[in-house]
Amino acid sequence: MDQKVRFAIIGAGRIGQVHAENLTRHVQEAKVVAIVDVIHDAAKQTAQRFGIAHASGDPEEIFSSREIDAVAICSSTETHSEYIIRAARAGKHAFCEKPIALDLPAVDAALAAVKESGTKLQIGFNRRFDPNFRGIRDAVRRGEIGSPYLVQITSRDPEAPPLSYVKGSGGLFLDMMIHDFDMTRFLLDDEVEEVSATGAVRVDPAIGEAGDIDTAVVTVRYRCGALGVITNSRQAVYGGDQRVEVLGSLGSVSCENNTPDRVIRQTEMGVIHPKPLYFFLERYQVAYADELRSFIQAIRDDTEVEVTGNDGRAPVVLALAAGLSFREKRAVSVSEVSD
Amino acid sequence: MDQKVRFAIIGAGRIGQVHAENLTRHVQEAKVVAIVDVIHDAAKQTAQRFGIAHASGDPEEIFSSREIDAVAICSSTETHSEYIIRAARAGKHAFCEKPIALDLPAVDAALAAVKESGTKLQIGFNRRFDPNFRGIRDAVRRGEIGSPYLVQITSRDPEAPPLSYVKGSGGLFLDMMIHDFDMTRFLLDDEVEEVSATGAVRVDPAIGEAGDIDTAVVTVRYRCGALGVITNSRQAVYGGDQRVEVLGSLGSVSCENNTPDRVIRQTEMGVIHPKPLYFFLERYQVAYADELRSFIQAIRDDTEVEVTGNDGRAPVVLALAAGLSFREKRAVSVSEVSD
Amino acid sequence: MDQKVRFAIIGAGRIGQVHAENLTRHVQEAKVVAIVDVIHDAAKQTAQRFGIAHASGDPEEIFSSREIDAVAICSSTETHSEYIIRAARAGKHAFCEKPIALDLPAVDAALAAVKESGTKLQIGFNRRFDPNFRGIRDAVRRGEIGSPYLVQITSRDPEAPPLSYVKGSGGLFLDMMIHDFDMTRFLLDDEVEEVSATGAVRVDPAIGEAGDIDTAVVTVRYRCGALGVITNSRQAVYGGDQRVEVLGSLGSVSCENNTPDRVIRQTEMGVIHPKPLYFFLERYQVAYADELRSFIQAIRDDTEVEVTGNDGRAPVVLALAAGLSFREKRAVSVSEVSD
Amino acid sequence: MDQKVRFAIIGAGRIGQVHAENLTRHVQEAKVVAIVDVIHDAAKQTAQRFGIAHASGDPEEIFSSREIDAVAICSSTETHSEYIIRAARAGKHAFCEKPIALDLPAVDAALAAVKESGTKLQIGFNRRFDPNFRGIRDAVRRGEIGSPYLVQITSRDPEAPPLSYVKGSGGLFLDMMIHDFDMTRFLLDDEVEEVSATGAVRVDPAIGEAGDIDTAVVTVRYRCGALGVITNSRQAVYGGDQRVEVLGSLGSVSCENNTPDRVIRQTEMGVIHPKPLYFFLERYQVAYADELRSFIQAIRDDTEVEVTGNDGRAPVVLALAAGLSFREKRAVSVSEVSD
Repeated sequence: MDQKVRFAIIGAGRIGQVHAENLTRHVQEAKVVAIVDVIHDAAKQTAQRFGIAHASGDPEEIFSSREIDAVAICSSTETHSEYIIRAARAGKHAFCEKPIALDLPAVDAALAAVKESGTKLQIGFNRRFDPNFRGIRDAVRRGEIGSPYLVQITSRDPEAPPLSYVKGSGGLFLDMMIHDFDMTRFLLDDEVEEVSATGAVRVDPAIGEAGDIDTAVVTVRYRCGALGVITNSRQAVYGGDQRVEVLGSLGSVSCENNTPDRVIRQTEMGVIHPKPLYFFLERYQVAYADELRSFIQAIRDDTEVEVTGNDGRAPVVLALAAGLSFREKRAVSVSEVSD
Repeated sequence: MDQKVRFAIIGAGRIGQVHAENLTRHVQEAKVVAIVDVIHDAAKQTAQRFGIAHASGDPEEIFSSREIDAVAICSSTETHSEYIIRAARAGKHAFCEKPIALDLPAVDAALAAVKESGTKLQIGFNRRFDPNFRGIRDAVRRGEIGSPYLVQITSRDPEAPPLSYVKGSGGLFLDMMIHDFDMTRFLLDDEVEEVSATGAVRVDPAIGEAGDIDTAVVTVRYRCGALGVITNSRQAVYGGDQRVEVLGSLGSVSCENNTPDRVIRQTEMGVIHPKPLYFFLERYQVAYADELRSFIQAIRDDTEVEVTGNDGRAPVVLALAAGLSFREKRAVSVSEVSD
Repeated sequence: MDQKVRFAIIGAGRIGQVHAENLTRHVQEAKVVAIVDVIHDAAKQTAQRFGIAHASGDPEEIFSSREIDAVAICSSTETHSEYIIRAARAGKHAFCEKPIALDLPAVDAALAAVKESGTKLQIGFNRRFDPNFRGIRDAVRRGEIGSPYLVQITSRDPEAPPLSYVKGSGGLFLDMMIHDFDMTRFLLDDEVEEVSATGAVRVDPAIGEAGDIDTAVVTVRYRCGALGVITNSRQAVYGGDQRVEVLGSLGSVSCENNTPDRVIRQTEMGVIHPKPLYFFLERYQVAYADELRSFIQAIRDDTEVEVTGNDGRAPVVLALAAGLSFREKRAVSVSEVSD
Repeated sequence: MDQKVRFAIIGAGRIGQVHAENLTRHVQEAKVVAIVDVIHDAAKQTAQRFGIAHASGDPEEIFSSREIDAVAICSSTETHSEYIIRAARAGKHAFCEKPIALDLPAVDAALAAVKESGTKLQIGFNRRFDPNFRGIRDAVRRGEIGSPYLVQITSRDPEAPPLSYVKGSGGLFLDMMIHDFDMTRFLLDDEVEEVSATGAVRVDPAIGEAGDIDTAVVTVRYRCGALGVITNSRQAVYGGDQRVEVLGSLGSVSCENNTPDRVIRQTEMGVIHPKPLYFFLERYQVAYADELRSFIQAIRDDTEVEVTGNDGRAPVVLALAAGLSFREKRAVSVSEVSD
């Protein structure tokens, strides 16, 4: 019971609070000893809300503390790489939100530091812990659909983020589709070799004026020869719509969306089923706790984490390749972006 | 934060552990200060597992303690009535598992004690807090289906309980269908006036030899004139199957079963959807926590509980009427059993 | 090609026209040579519509004609028994709409005449030819659900018939639930021994004033010991709702309603699936043609028909027993009504 | 009634027999007076089966006959263009199976002849008459999903055709995906401007050795700015899988597959729903009759046909563009192939 992993959380924003709630209430094997945010008040409020003993505005306190085994990096993307490096040098394990960085040199610097220190780094690709996606991956692994032919990933947010967020996001491929790029690799346990991207502005012209797109289709070719396709839309008014299907020689395995309940109304208007859960925090509630449990398990057992630094790097490569393909209207080999 | 409701749990069996887990981990407004079981070791083990300070083999310690605001009565059915009475006399609120008792005098004695003391009593009809059933009740209340015509309740356990349990259970009507009798009242906010029961032994002849049935159909007539029908089976090998439908002048509202995930396989065998959750503790996980939150809310706000002592009494009356109807092969008016 | 079975249709009402259309257009092995209706103009119009050579107001012409092999009796219920007898005596096979009659003596007279003549009689229980219900029966027969526990039949019309129709219908049990009584026997290949009926007036008070009910629940006990329950409502505003489920020791088999298409809308309002087909003629379109094909096959091969005179009699017995049970508020053994 | 449209069918292969059955049995407004096939025996057998008066091995007899109003061209693809031209010059309306031809000059020659003659030409894109796809198109037209964002078309055959067929098919884009290219235009009432194709050999290496692919993803960009994606697989062992979804600013509209029935089994293995209909002739049974009814209606009313010659040309253009895109690994503007 005393072998609880002692955590510090860096970043008291939305995702920081999600991890704080899980680590303090739902993950028995963790103990949160500190929370840091550059806005000191935000750290203090979150500390109070979840009963965390120490709140601070200075991350340095964390890296120098002997009472901390691991950090959960929930700060803004541009700080991820630096905090991974500092955690590694301080001998602390790091759980880091995606993406590691928006450019490969920063990603590689972080991974090198972790490699040198021998600490553990897990990337927050929470969807890998969603029971539906995991169920599909497991079925594929067990050979239930035979040899894979085609992966179809449909991913739609309920509404577009604020324009201010869009501007700093790195673009749809790096911000939104990065989850789906991770999913392509996860579902088949295979690497993508080639990417072809098409994009459009359909949801909001302001997104286009900001230099981004809000609708996209990306085709991928796997090393094994299978094909995949990802479609993204920044807006599906009926809720967060994230479905996956893998077709193979013995059939297909797919998933429907989670819904708040299973209540069905039959009226003169039609047979009305519940909408998908609107918000990704609801949809992936279980997954957010489970990814932390998995991380802690790897620390305790000193085994490989389930989502490695390389798993954090590969989707960044795919997103960069997709951006290039979109701009040049041609298929792009992944080796053009990273060898 | 200091206004947490201080609980003692009586009974460290399966359901006692469910409430212990919820009260210690998932219900922030509760604090469990003691657990009691006549088997002292059981109390100690559960106390250790959930970090409960005090474990005891003697319920008297609880009723005399000033550090306890409320008790959760999870002991065997024949003790419920007595513990409700002792809690009431000790000025403690009581959350009691169903049924209050297997006979009306015991039920009425308990309710009288509670009335006299002015403490709160909530009965553990957890299904009232299931999002599906609650969603249906709410839709009916809002008038979405207009005037109600017909309530259909399908309730099937995944497998029959051990014969030893069956023998002491009070029979299918009082043990299993009591949840559905409660549901009839809950769904329409109306009382049942007449009951017609048919039963059979289909699952296991040993259940028949023990004087019970394992399959039953009960028709009810509501005060408002609507009809209802409950079907029960002790065994549905594909999982716990609990569905409800209400038909009215404007349509119907119903629910499907919860499933562990939403993964679908399409193979040469067919299109295979997930089975219902097998075990009722999984199915009603959310409901078990929510009923406790509701109870605590009523204590803190000093408002009426959501599932009253009378809500605990009425299904016992219906179960007794069903037993009479089954034995005499005729419709039985509820007033024959209780006025 | 010349061995087509030559038909005369008696009755040019709604159901007569359904059979006329099927026999003239969709059932290649039949040839309709005459149509008769007491309203001569109705016969003429239907004859013209479907290219039938001969139209008449006098059924006698049919029974005396040598050019006719079989009659389809689609006239009003009170004439069924007489026409069956006359067809039998004239050596003609008869396909007769349900019910044979509203009283057992009339039914038995008809069956006796058929037995004596050695001609074939098939009753128009079209639902036996519905691919869904047939699929369930076949699954039960193949042992897919093991030993049967419970049959649940839900049957709802989209709207109540005109009051004038209700008054002459023989009441809900004989008019509407008769199809479901037939289904109880069909699904399990077993006989019902005991019936308990409850009824109510919920849809339209005028139906109650006419001495009938519009909502009913009937429980049946099979000879094999299994239970069954039928629920009926004269009104489900979202369409004709006819579902069946059989639960057994190895699982359950059930069916959903047919819908006009499979189009799904996802909007802010919900996920809207298509409503069940509104009208029974649409729902059972395939079944209406298939029952005639089956009848013709039996004539050509000189084999037993799929829905015998006894299959027409038994549901009348069950309906009469249900009426008695409803009036006397007690379980009624089928042997009380017919031995 | 005498104004039936008099048809000759050219080609007595599989699809010729489908049209023969529909025109002789299910489409009341047509009369088939002749059938022609270069294999005279095939013509004779089909004539006998469906009661067609005249069978011939020489199409010339048809074009010179005064007793024929329209031809149904069901012969092999390379003859389509020539027969359209001969029908037009003979003043006969033509219903022609897809594709018109595998190259644009042949297509354009056929369309020019029809334009000159003023006769009617309808192309056999039967899926436009499928109630599901039509329901989606109608919902889009009515504005139910608002401004369109994304069209997703999933199209999978149950099994790959024989290698001999593959070799003469013109390749997957012209043979299989041509239906889906037609669907892209049909669903949005808009033209495609740009195509990006990716393909693979996953089902059978022999298909690759024959110079074709069996798995493909094609992204399209519409004139209105919306995107679309088509995925094709030559093999889905669970049945013919053809689904469509259109996402827009107000939601999405999609369809599920048709199934032979709606029977659901619940066992220890899972909840087993019916598979999609295996064969396209079953799936599109209604559509095959309805496209002929529509054609005949246009002839009788002298109105524009529902699937014009240009509707036959456009998907050929898209298929050629997709082939170019696949070979050159780049986005191809439709104007590169046809202006």
